[in-house]
Amino acid sequence: MKTVAFVLYPGITALDLVGPLQVMSVLAAFDPSWNVVVAAETARPAPTDTPLGLVPSHTFDQLAGPAAPYAVIVPGGTEPTFAALADDRLLERIRTLAAGAQVIGSVCTGSLLLAAAGLLQGRRATTHWAVLDVLGRLGAVPVAERVVQDGPVVTAAGVSAGIDMALALAGRLAGEETARTVQLMIEYDPQPPYGPIDWAAVDRASLVPVMTGMLAAALADHPRLRERLTA
Amino acid sequence: MKTVAFVLYPGITALDLVGPLQVMSVLAAFDPSWNVVVAAETARPAPTDTPLGLVPSHTFDQLAGPAAPYAVIVPGGTEPTFAALADDRLLERIRTLAAGAQVIGSVCTGSLLLAAAGLLQGRRATTHWAVLDVLGRLGAVPVAERVVQDGPVVTAAGVSAGIDMALALAGRLAGEETARTVQLMIEYDPQPPYGPIDWAAVDRASLVPVMTGMLAAALADHPRLRERLTA
Repeated sequence: MKTVAFVLYPGITALDLVGPLQVMSVLAAFDPSWNVVVAAETARPAPTDTPLGLVPSHTFDQLAGPAAPYAVIVPGGTEPTFAALADDRLLERIRTLAAGAQVIGSVCTGSLLLAAAGLLQGRRATTHWAVLDVLGRLGAVPVAERVVQDGPVVTAAGVSAGIDMALALAGRLAGEETARTVQLMIEYDPQPPYGPIDWAAVDRASLVPVMTGMLAAALADHPRLRERLTA
Repeated sequence: MKTVAFVLYPGITALDLVGPLQVMSVLAAFDPSWNVVVAAETARPAPTDTPLGLVPSHTFDQLAGPAAPYAVIVPGGTEPTFAALADDRLLERIRTLAAGAQVIGSVCTGSLLLAAAGLLQGRRATTHWAVLDVLGRLGAVPVAERVVQDGPVVTAAGVSAGIDMALALAGRLAGEETARTVQLMIEYDPQPPYGPIDWAAVDRASLVPVMTGMLAAALADHPRLRERLTA
């Protein structure tokens, strides 16, 4: 039995976690060689950027030693994730989990945490479109693609991209037929009501500062890191 | 301030709730005339079909009277949702919330709960592809579309369809421009790694019995309802 562990910390974007978690949980229902867990520092409910609180299945300590996961996936978020870039305890937890894992994944700004933990040096990776530059300042090679694979690392673009990433990962881990069955069970046949994103029409000049403003505010107590990431 | 209330009950499919919840939470961040809550019978964490437990922001009692929501959205699931078709207390909660709402929504098998609550009589509605027939047996007019609108009722197909439904609803509630901004912030520009679902190739004969078997098992103590829905 191999374990896929999702990392939970306070303030995440709920869909960053739940999109790929749903994919992997359905995978585990069809292929019992996989086990899925959600791990956090404590067993207490963690707030999210929605009204929902999330309760993990495990603490990080419970995943040590022989229970070390095969794959670890880190979700992102806005201010709380940016603040976590200076959270040495969380970064050390991520490094420890990643050291024993064959697959290291992230969704959205979760890749900034992987980079801050030193796991993306020189690696191609992606993140939410509005902070691709920040990913570069943390030592990764930013790539504007929906899912980016580089060695053991697989990173997804913003929020909903975690579903695409997880289905691709399901195919790698359990084969394309199983991945297609998972896709069918979660009826992932997207029809965005306003069509795909029209990137040429995106008003980056007004939206990117929203994210970088959040980043600067979240790192107010860490001026050197703040300057490095927002200068 | 208008409230969008998501209904939480034990055993739901996590993504049914969190997909549209994320959309509506980002909407509320951009348009402060909207408020989003997650309501359940008790404040205790509810298990899901993933390793994650979910903690609501409100109890149903807290949404009574002047706090009654403008929109109510009911997520689905597998066995626990099917068992809930015989849960008169939950159905009464749904009826009460719906009675004061302008929008009544569901994701996946959540529409079976709306139908069991008597809210879909003669209305066009959808659900997870594998239980469309069951929806018809509950008095709705089943439609194999991703999102179906009929009067105040908007229903989504299986699991991930809740994201498409919520973006369409965001457009109705706050205008297309805001809905497009929400889509951009959650980077909903889907690229399923194996492409869209190839419905002509779906092996319904082997997968539909999985769902109807779950339904029959979940209603073992309610033989008349079980017979009505699975005969």
